[in-house]
Amino acid sequence: MAGKKVLIVYAHQEPRSLNGSLKDVAVAELSQQGCSVIVSDLYAMNFEPRATGKDITGTLSNPGFFNYGVEAHKAYKKQSLSSDIIEEQKKLQEADLVIFQGKLAILSLTTGGTASMFSKTGVNGDFRYFLWPLQHGTLHFCGFKVLAPQISFGPEMASEEERKRMVASWAQRLKTLWEEEPIQCSPPWYFGQ
Amino acid sequence: MAGKKVLIVYAHQEPRSLNGSLKDVAVAELSQQGCSVIVSDLYAMNFEPRATGKDITGTLSNPGFFNYGVEAHKAYKKQSLSSDIIEEQKKLQEADLVIFQGKLAILSLTTGGTASMFSKTGVNGDFRYFLWPLQHGTLHFCGFKVLAPQISFGPEMASEEERKRMVASWAQRLKTLWEEEPIQCSPPWYFGQ
Repeated sequence: MAGKKVLIVYAHQEPRSLNGSLKDVAVAELSQQGCSVIVSDLYAMNFEPRATGKDITGTLSNPGFFNYGVEAHKAYKKQSLSSDIIEEQKKLQEADLVIFQGKLAILSLTTGGTASMFSKTGVNGDFRYFLWPLQHGTLHFCGFKVLAPQISFGPEMASEEERKRMVASWAQRLKTLWEEEPIQCSPPWYFGQ
Repeated sequence: MAGKKVLIVYAHQEPRSLNGSLKDVAVAELSQQGCSVIVSDLYAMNFEPRATGKDITGTLSNPGFFNYGVEAHKAYKKQSLSSDIIEEQKKLQEADLVIFQGKLAILSLTTGGTASMFSKTGVNGDFRYFLWPLQHGTLHFCGFKVLAPQISFGPEMASEEERKRMVASWAQRLKTLWEEEPIQCSPPWYFGQ
């Protein structure tokens, strides 16, 4: 939708992977719609995933007993978080739509196993089980309305043609993404009744 | 049990936290039993959590298309993984018991919320839900027999006396840990029937 701001949080090491293609097709389709699209390419940025005292600049509120949650909250209010975090927060605040994409990330993800391996009786259990901590515990908790995830199952085991279908199906879905209703992000969606 | 090797994988920034006390009491109790105890203190080691090409030394099998799983598997067989990974793998292979401990890690963990927040109808849902990806998807998948987790709920909201009880209860359990039966690590344990 023209004028909307989209942030794609992208986490994969190989630009030529299926994940890379899914990201490229999203940038292309959404730009074509007139959205402004920003990609946070976490591996390319060498984004720091460790939660340590380095995330807080200036003096700690209690240097003798480091509590990450307390210090980060105070630093957030004082705007003394490290610049890499502040930049990502700014992108998030400004975005109308956020697409998290990567292996086992949220909303658009690829898996190492096939769809049947991620069914209720499969070796990995229902794919919704592993979405719970991220999609409910993080996104929903942070106030996002969550759209149904786009899962591309087992590209490594799929044929080239199937992989092309996965990319095309994502491109197709993006055409009407703005009309979708969010899921009911509560236990029944994940675990049934 | 005398002679057993125990590895504690510990992930917390503050040695004086409840997590630190739980680790200390485990080292003390298990050493007293005659076990040899090693602690991998991930934050203190500044352990690299990113899965990148730096984990593989020497030449990649396919430098034009980086597939982490493929490259890591080949490097494992050629013993050309980076030294920090090889060292941790060696500790794991030699251990009779592995205790993963940290916020939201496995087996011995502390939470930010109270027990009722981690019940089926609580805001976070049953605590077993968030254990699924780590405890089943990682530990069980890697062939571990999994003991019931030790969860210390909400130390930040608890009184000093309650926190002492949490540490004492962990120390008490460690006395007879070797007699415990592993859980049935399958969907019913996590999601009920």
